[in-house]
Amino acid sequence: MFKASSFGLMPCKTFLQPKSSIKTEDNGKVKFYHTKVVRNPKLERLQYNYLFPEISARELQHVKKYPNARVISLGIGDTTEPLPEVVASSMANYAHNLSTPAGYRGYGAEQGSKELRKAIAETFYKKMGIKDKEVFVSDGAQCDISRLQLLFGSNMSIAIQDPIFPAYIDSSVIIGQTGDVDTESGRYQNIKYMKCGPHNGFFPNLWETERTDIIFFCSPNNPTGHAANREQLEQLVQFAQDNGSIIVYDSAYAVYVTDGPRSIYEISGAKKVAIEISSFSKIAGFTGVRLGWTVVPEELLYLNGFPVINDFNRIVCTCFNGASRIAQAGGLASLSSEGFKGVLSLVDHYKQNAEILLETFESLGLKAYGGVNAPYLWVHFPGSNSWDVFNEILEKTHIITVPGSGFGPAGKEFIRVTAFGHREDIIEASKRLTSLLS
Amino acid sequence: MFKASSFGLMPCKTFLQPKSSIKTEDNGKVKFYHTKVVRNPKLERLQYNYLFPEISARELQHVKKYPNARVISLGIGDTTEPLPEVVASSMANYAHNLSTPAGYRGYGAEQGSKELRKAIAETFYKKMGIKDKEVFVSDGAQCDISRLQLLFGSNMSIAIQDPIFPAYIDSSVIIGQTGDVDTESGRYQNIKYMKCGPHNGFFPNLWETERTDIIFFCSPNNPTGHAANREQLEQLVQFAQDNGSIIVYDSAYAVYVTDGPRSIYEISGAKKVAIEISSFSKIAGFTGVRLGWTVVPEELLYLNGFPVINDFNRIVCTCFNGASRIAQAGGLASLSSEGFKGVLSLVDHYKQNAEILLETFESLGLKAYGGVNAPYLWVHFPGSNSWDVFNEILEKTHIITVPGSGFGPAGKEFIRVTAFGHREDIIEASKRLTSLLS
Repeated sequence: MFKASSFGLMPCKTFLQPKSSIKTEDNGKVKFYHTKVVRNPKLERLQYNYLFPEISARELQHVKKYPNARVISLGIGDTTEPLPEVVASSMANYAHNLSTPAGYRGYGAEQGSKELRKAIAETFYKKMGIKDKEVFVSDGAQCDISRLQLLFGSNMSIAIQDPIFPAYIDSSVIIGQTGDVDTESGRYQNIKYMKCGPHNGFFPNLWETERTDIIFFCSPNNPTGHAANREQLEQLVQFAQDNGSIIVYDSAYAVYVTDGPRSIYEISGAKKVAIEISSFSKIAGFTGVRLGWTVVPEELLYLNGFPVINDFNRIVCTCFNGASRIAQAGGLASLSSEGFKGVLSLVDHYKQNAEILLETFESLGLKAYGGVNAPYLWVHFPGSNSWDVFNEILEKTHIITVPGSGFGPAGKEFIRVTAFGHREDIIEASKRLTSLLS
Repeated sequence: MFKASSFGLMPCKTFLQPKSSIKTEDNGKVKFYHTKVVRNPKLERLQYNYLFPEISARELQHVKKYPNARVISLGIGDTTEPLPEVVASSMANYAHNLSTPAGYRGYGAEQGSKELRKAIAETFYKKMGIKDKEVFVSDGAQCDISRLQLLFGSNMSIAIQDPIFPAYIDSSVIIGQTGDVDTESGRYQNIKYMKCGPHNGFFPNLWETERTDIIFFCSPNNPTGHAANREQLEQLVQFAQDNGSIIVYDSAYAVYVTDGPRSIYEISGAKKVAIEISSFSKIAGFTGVRLGWTVVPEELLYLNGFPVINDFNRIVCTCFNGASRIAQAGGLASLSSEGFKGVLSLVDHYKQNAEILLETFESLGLKAYGGVNAPYLWVHFPGSNSWDVFNEILEKTHIITVPGSGFGPAGKEFIRVTAFGHREDIIEASKRLTSLLS
């Protein structure tokens, strides 16, 4: 039977067993050729598989075991609804024009097209004073997290929310900001974990948080679905100013916020302490198209007065070569007035899904957080181990969720449920969960 | 007058002067708010702007100065010819289908689609025993260089060809493998520069090269246009085996090779010592579409026997989220039998351009290298400073080239000329160069 560790994912499997044809016999023992290159000790510190490929692997196993089951995925937060016609057409036209002399384009600017940078600044940062040139178009928020880690380097101290989307921690380990993991607690040395849960309204107790150089802050939060309100963000910006820290604010789900700030730059003074990452993935259904952006204000300065934006520009030019021009054409169309209307109706669809799921869990007497200003629900199973809950739900209802401990020690009694899905799947999932849990 | 440093690019300009609105007055001196975050010392080591954005900036300046001049770019190696219809259509169809329930797709596998991995293995590595799962699809070779540096980490020793495409060195500085730059020689401490020039047939003197963990090797070479022959690559693989080193073989221009190996895996034993990076950019005109790949053989093992592929897979899953699915559809179409025929005719076009340019320089009594198995010419101006040559050509003929010293100290008497261009531009460039230099 499956035996989960109490705090996280299973130890990393050697997913490929090397079967080299180049081998020598040494006293009867087969010896493969090894280079003399020492494995990167930072990668050795990564104790677990990356969460989402692991969930995918579990899903595949389950499908093999139950080939006739209709599996419903409320696991990986992946968009399911078709793109607005105007968005898809604009990408199709752009792609098709690449076969014509007039429409062909080679390299674009590493930072993205002027038009798209302008449209992002106007759509999402109106009245906040963000300039077009402060917007760097990318191939997605996850990739930008790693580029920001390249920007920061190994000497930075960092703080993260606990629980949190694992890319911040894993990229921090990879770049060398952490020590070893404590196998007891599942926490890495040198990372400050800011615990967020029902006890503090999912907002960290800043007065007991140590100063760090960088504070990664995701709101609406993945996985808890909590969106920080204005007062909380004011506290956060004040905290960063008092400490001279840089906030990396991940607003990939901001468009799901109905009441409250959608950008850190709505808070006065944020431009001198915050970088913002965002993405078209969950706004416009671009998970497979790949498009995002990062804002680095000119006002954000290192201790020595050097502008952070200059170094980030260098990273983007050296380590990236721009997002696909076709994806950029789609991004631009999705910010047009017709496109944005279509995009918002996708968001509405997922928000209604969230409402259905929230009602389901509440009717079962379970406490589910999030789901109002975010496409995620964070469901509490007091006293349970999240991997056990994940397994039981999968085994009995053929529904994929994500075990909360995959997001950090504070998630061990929770599962994350995504509201991304076709309506009929959400309704069917609701029925199955009701019959399992009632 | 323009005054070039003798070995490289101009010192990095502070391209954005921070004009913060959040400032305080301190004894009459304006003081901007600074965070307390120390700038990454590794980025501080980068002494120069990244080469290609710098060349673009020069081009813009020139256009401003001569608004009526017809500038011809033989600078940045950017494709100019339209895509084969079948390739563009397949991307257009894929994009359009994203607006239909049946055609919509969300996240793809981080490593790329199975079909594309298989097609790459079959098209480029037939009979070399490269497996589909050893092929990792990416958004381009330049991005993969940085992901490989994340894989290797800061403790690796590296060797590079001199001259060379600057991304290897710059990413090495960013990840922390180097010491400071020696401002006299323009060389970074801890990098072993393998000088390549007419004196050694553009292949490094391996017997006098110190052992390093990693050997970056680009063939056909950017900028020199030299393609290593079979005997040379056998020497290289043997050298890596003797030293237990890992070769990172950049074969982005391999399809331009008429005679000689197109992959390091054509050499026996290479799979246990080499990673190969490649790209659709120069093969299929995908510079703006963004698609490439990296091969990491299962047989490649660290000193402790751990497979390099496992760690690279982790980097790809954590720091990348897959190439755009639309670009992948285009990649797959370009490897179909009709698509590949179209793609090869693009390559032919650029190769003929190279021939015209080669003849031009030769008729002028200048020695031009490359241009046969590569889309680049490396033109020697003995005793000259390459930035001066760059400026003179630009000023007098409105042609953009690339000064050789931008590729390393060994390039200081050379300019790189690209064969990417419309035929009429190449012919016109040839005329202008003839009247300037004859």
